[in-house]
Amino acid sequence: SKVKSNAGNFFEDFFVGMQIIHPTPKTITEGDVALYTGLTGSRYALFSADRFAQDCGLESAPIDPLLAFHVVFGKTVSDISLNAVANLGYADGVFVAPVYPGDTLRSVSEVVGVKENSNGKTGVVYVRTSGVNQNDELVLTYIRWVMVKKRDEGFPAPETVIPELSDCVPADSLGMPMMDAEGWDYQLAGSEHAFEDYEVGEKIDHIDAFTVEEAEHQIATRLYQNTAKVHFNQHEQAQGRFGKRLVYGGVAISLARSIAFNGLANAAQIVGINGGTHVNPLFAGDTVYAWSEVLEKADVSEGFGALRLRLVATKDLPCASFPYKDADGKYLENVILDFDYWAAIPKRT
Amino acid sequence: SKVKSNAGNFFEDFFVGMQIIHPTPKTITEGDVALYTGLTGSRYALFSADRFAQDCGLESAPIDPLLAFHVVFGKTVSDISLNAVANLGYADGVFVAPVYPGDTLRSVSEVVGVKENSNGKTGVVYVRTSGVNQNDELVLTYIRWVMVKKRDEGFPAPETVIPELSDCVPADSLGMPMMDAEGWDYQLAGSEHAFEDYEVGEKIDHIDAFTVEEAEHQIATRLYQNTAKVHFNQHEQAQGRFGKRLVYGGVAISLARSIAFNGLANAAQIVGINGGTHVNPLFAGDTVYAWSEVLEKADVSEGFGALRLRLVATKDLPCASFPYKDADGKYLENVILDFDYWAAIPKRT
Amino acid sequence: SKVKSNAGNFFEDFFVGMQIIHPTPKTITEGDVALYTGLTGSRYALFSADRFAQDCGLESAPIDPLLAFHVVFGKTVSDISLNAVANLGYADGVFVAPVYPGDTLRSVSEVVGVKENSNGKTGVVYVRTSGVNQNDELVLTYIRWVMVKKRDEGFPAPETVIPELSDCVPADSLGMPMMDAEGWDYQLAGSEHAFEDYEVGEKIDHIDAFTVEEAEHQIATRLYQNTAKVHFNQHEQAQGRFGKRLVYGGVAISLARSIAFNGLANAAQIVGINGGTHVNPLFAGDTVYAWSEVLEKADVSEGFGALRLRLVATKDLPCASFPYKDADGKYLENVILDFDYWAAIPKRT
Repeated sequence: SKVKSNAGNFFEDFFVGMQIIHPTPKTITEGDVALYTGLTGSRYALFSADRFAQDCGLESAPIDPLLAFHVVFGKTVSDISLNAVANLGYADGVFVAPVYPGDTLRSVSEVVGVKENSNGKTGVVYVRTSGVNQNDELVLTYIRWVMVKKRDEGFPAPETVIPELSDCVPADSLGMPMMDAEGWDYQLAGSEHAFEDYEVGEKIDHIDAFTVEEAEHQIATRLYQNTAKVHFNQHEQAQGRFGKRLVYGGVAISLARSIAFNGLANAAQIVGINGGTHVNPLFAGDTVYAWSEVLEKADVSEGFGALRLRLVATKDLPCASFPYKDADGKYLENVILDFDYWAAIPKRT
Repeated sequence: SKVKSNAGNFFEDFFVGMQIIHPTPKTITEGDVALYTGLTGSRYALFSADRFAQDCGLESAPIDPLLAFHVVFGKTVSDISLNAVANLGYADGVFVAPVYPGDTLRSVSEVVGVKENSNGKTGVVYVRTSGVNQNDELVLTYIRWVMVKKRDEGFPAPETVIPELSDCVPADSLGMPMMDAEGWDYQLAGSEHAFEDYEVGEKIDHIDAFTVEEAEHQIATRLYQNTAKVHFNQHEQAQGRFGKRLVYGGVAISLARSIAFNGLANAAQIVGINGGTHVNPLFAGDTVYAWSEVLEKADVSEGFGALRLRLVATKDLPCASFPYKDADGKYLENVILDFDYWAAIPKRT
Repeated sequence: SKVKSNAGNFFEDFFVGMQIIHPTPKTITEGDVALYTGLTGSRYALFSADRFAQDCGLESAPIDPLLAFHVVFGKTVSDISLNAVANLGYADGVFVAPVYPGDTLRSVSEVVGVKENSNGKTGVVYVRTSGVNQNDELVLTYIRWVMVKKRDEGFPAPETVIPELSDCVPADSLGMPMMDAEGWDYQLAGSEHAFEDYEVGEKIDHIDAFTVEEAEHQIATRLYQNTAKVHFNQHEQAQGRFGKRLVYGGVAISLARSIAFNGLANAAQIVGINGGTHVNPLFAGDTVYAWSEVLEKADVSEGFGALRLRLVATKDLPCASFPYKDADGKYLENVILDFDYWAAIPKRT
């Protein structure tokens, strides 16, 4: 009989053009939303209250795009990154269609680049992953690249293919919210600040902070059906480089975005991911703080503008002085996340 | 550009008659109910089983009034108590209308009293907070008072206004359950004891106990979208008075009420809050026990009576001897909660 | 007034033929499913995605039978095993009807055996427990036996009655899935291996592992409304045999089954429980691994076969060498679970 359990793909298993249908579709429910709120503390009104969403012309509160992202991402781990050494980056992420409770998401990926490292032991794999709903509609898509171990170091290196990656999703290709901005209730949303009130270069200290517990990041990561061993197996990690479990990077992104409510309450809906790096590892017991910088503004629909934002998260370091990089351009050791994204925000007029 | 993040109100920002619409309405869902059950262990059949509720003439299982209370309370924190030194008390709480999964709650508050302390550094703010549903119907209302820091100690003290607070909500102003008591299944509810079986002065040791974990109280408090820093930020609390995070008082109330099932299984529905004090702080690692005393009985509707109950919770101290106060009337150091409320309980008829 | 709280039944309270209706029916919702996923990491597509289930002819994703089992089991604890010394075993478990979100389950038990131990201090109680839905349909049924303390050692021993327990549920009495196996999507389910691909005697190392946290097992066990003190009360357990809280055995079963996805992805649906023993205790901080052995195969319906599987879980011990018993037939000290069950799996044809 054939071996039944899956040890994951290694670098030499990937080739450009390879298509992967990832297992375990998931219906996202009000239960997932409740857990997401409980684990992140998210307070964006659009994703919290049906009535708020209905006042903007939607049928009910949609799912936070980050929750959809984590679910789509989670499915790819067993095929793409079970033998990954490092998750190197994201690019070209677009949120195309809203997700509502009851929608079923599945993930498909295409390998769009491979490059063996000079050590002959590892290589970088680039994949475009797409989340698709029960009606076979594209919901979101992004590229990520990971460094993966080779199974057999003697296996010949493939031809190097590196996809062209832009630094930023063009504003006119973002899927902007199909909502009535006139129905947006700024008081209930928690801030009077609209698109017009933000300036390029403006920095915001989000003040609030969350200390992460092992149970919290494990529950979140399992909810996303992400199976990466480094988050779950203390028995093995005790022998590893850090001696402890690593928190899934998506948990850091969601905590930072929850904290960013305090200053960006109306910029609820992420519509694009330009790039993202998990600069330093996050562990249970660490306290996450965050700050943002407005990188760019784009006036892209009748009711909504888009803010391009840099979201920086730190551990055990308040962000009043916007900690980021040192004089040599190297990230400070307390910085854990550098995330560049577009968010939709209503215009006042 | 104006500062975008909110550092909360200070004592001098409050004035009698001030109206506050709090951000982030929330649709309460079956997901919240599941988390509430997982975090508190609540076993009251009325809130657990649609079929049980339907046998009493309801459309489905309503939300536990305490869950609705925590959600309404949580929204007020960013405006009322972000700079609070202490949460001093509750009074005059009435649960007016049932909440069902799918209902959206928002919170509004009115400042009903202010009193600067003689030290000139802090003052007491009294607010009446109301929870309102998506049809603009009042769901619950209560008064609480908190001690809040002044931003500027030189700011002149306001005229003192202290609202009249009764010790107890009159029984005839309670919103009693609109249910068919004849459909109440005592076996499925877990106790044969009806309104008639309880005596004023009777004390009940609830026997059971729960040890609280950091992840548990944090998930609960975030689910309620309560943002008080003392519950979440170990990095900051390490420098504070206790050196650790404080558990939100509402978590203690809910755990104690869950424990109180063992002895009060039919007194499921809280219909009024007469008063409540968080006597000593609760921390992760502490084990919560509870006991109750019947303070008063009121025969207020055809099918249901009301029990006025004192719910006392302790940490690391079993309650067989009903621990409460010492000879000088001072609370014992293991007592964490003294909560005075009305609960509806079916009459045997 | 009578004592209101329940201290649980003791050995002499049980008699053969005794019928018990257990308190607190529970409506199982999408919220429970989300928490179950977050706490176990389960990835079986059938229970995760409505669309997957609909492609097999079902109305929506059913509830994982283990979740239904834990809910039915949890209700019995306050009546059966509050004073149990040990949970000795399960047998003759059959899952009769599927459970969907919105169904309300209640539990009833009949005592089918009693046997006092020679020490006169404890005895073994055998109960058949059944889970019934809101339409009074049988959903699942099983026998378990527990060792329970006597209240009064002087109480005379009852006549010994030991029920006949078969080692294995006959394959033709299993409630097989009423699904269209032709709609089963092997790619989305996560494995190409069908009924035909498994051989009797085959062993599978499931590779993955989960470290258990106190908050996780407590939330799970409370979700099931299981009240056994040993899982929740550190203050008391600190004085006990192990000095710490015990993880509920059902948590171990669910974690092991979640881990077993890696190798048994299509054997999603448990249809029978032949036997189960919690060999050694599981504590927070331990890491659970698992392996399986195919004990038997039965071709019982048009679209589905049944695999009889032994599921062995260990703590802090990888399972590549299938750890089980020593040369004397004694379980190894790292083995925590020996669980013998039937699972349905689609046939390729």
